[in-house]
Amino acid sequence: MRKKLAVDMDNVIVDIENHWINIYEKKYGVKIQKEDLLGIPEEEGFPDPVAARALIYEPGFFRTAPAMPGAVEALMKLQTRYDLYIVSAAMEFPNSLKEKHDWLAAYCPFISWKNIIFCGDKSVVVTDYLIDDHLKNLDYTKATPILFTASHNVHVQKHTRVNNWQEVLDLLMKD
Amino acid sequence: MRKKLAVDMDNVIVDIENHWINIYEKKYGVKIQKEDLLGIPEEEGFPDPVAARALIYEPGFFRTAPAMPGAVEALMKLQTRYDLYIVSAAMEFPNSLKEKHDWLAAYCPFISWKNIIFCGDKSVVVTDYLIDDHLKNLDYTKATPILFTASHNVHVQKHTRVNNWQEVLDLLMKD
Repeated sequence: MRKKLAVDMDNVIVDIENHWINIYEKKYGVKIQKEDLLGIPEEEGFPDPVAARALIYEPGFFRTAPAMPGAVEALMKLQTRYDLYIVSAAMEFPNSLKEKHDWLAAYCPFISWKNIIFCGDKSVVVTDYLIDDHLKNLDYTKATPILFTASHNVHVQKHTRVNNWQEVLDLLMKD
Repeated sequence: MRKKLAVDMDNVIVDIENHWINIYEKKYGVKIQKEDLLGIPEEEGFPDPVAARALIYEPGFFRTAPAMPGAVEALMKLQTRYDLYIVSAAMEFPNSLKEKHDWLAAYCPFISWKNIIFCGDKSVVVTDYLIDDHLKNLDYTKATPILFTASHNVHVQKHTRVNNWQEVLDLLMKD
């Protein structure tokens, strides 16, 4: 029986981090380095965390973010072996619901609407694996948790870690 | 430990059926009776099923639907005993995502965004109970299925049936 694989969107298949840095620079003329975000909640690495947070709520923020390197190709491969579900805590940002749907339709048209889940608490979504960048999701899942590296989680010492999509494939497509 | 209760939106907490009949009449001047919808897929009870189906895709359709009688009050009561989740297959109608979110914010502000799930296939959402009007959800859930009566399911002979929200309370709040 095929196993069920749940994959988060932000900072896992969508490159929110670089997108956020670029938009902040475009709006405020200050380019921060990715190193400034290491090991802290994301917006706190920006000179003005409140202004940084406000950017997320602007129309288009999620729809215009780029894909993580190798993510789309890897998802296509994973789908040959797993029942693949996209599981995003999109409910926190209601304006992102349609944008995230449209992003997936554009970048991952091979993923059916039946396999997309927008939620808040991911603990009631039960799959065999969950790839996510946040402990608030990984610590409470019934799935085997896989931590996808993002700046904010570099100091985390638990869960199997993957640093990029090639490492996901090495882990889940081996043998 | 509190049990988890998942509740569908359309035809369970939102009165889509009467709303659809009213909008069809307003647009096409023909009022069908609820009896015309008994035991058949919903749109097939309308004189022009294609036109009826198109109404669902019009902006505002989901946001302006009324609540089912007694639904909101019952959900408030159920929340005192259960971890309540709203689980809607909203992904089939991408334009409904924000509208369904806004509907819940307006009618059920006591339900946290963390407890709202918009999905396609509900089988990966695992709770103790699922109240739904569709066999495509109830037949594949790991939860105890509870069939909420809607015109299209009146002939269904399986699952525990509830005909209204008082019957839900009688079933789930007893003792």
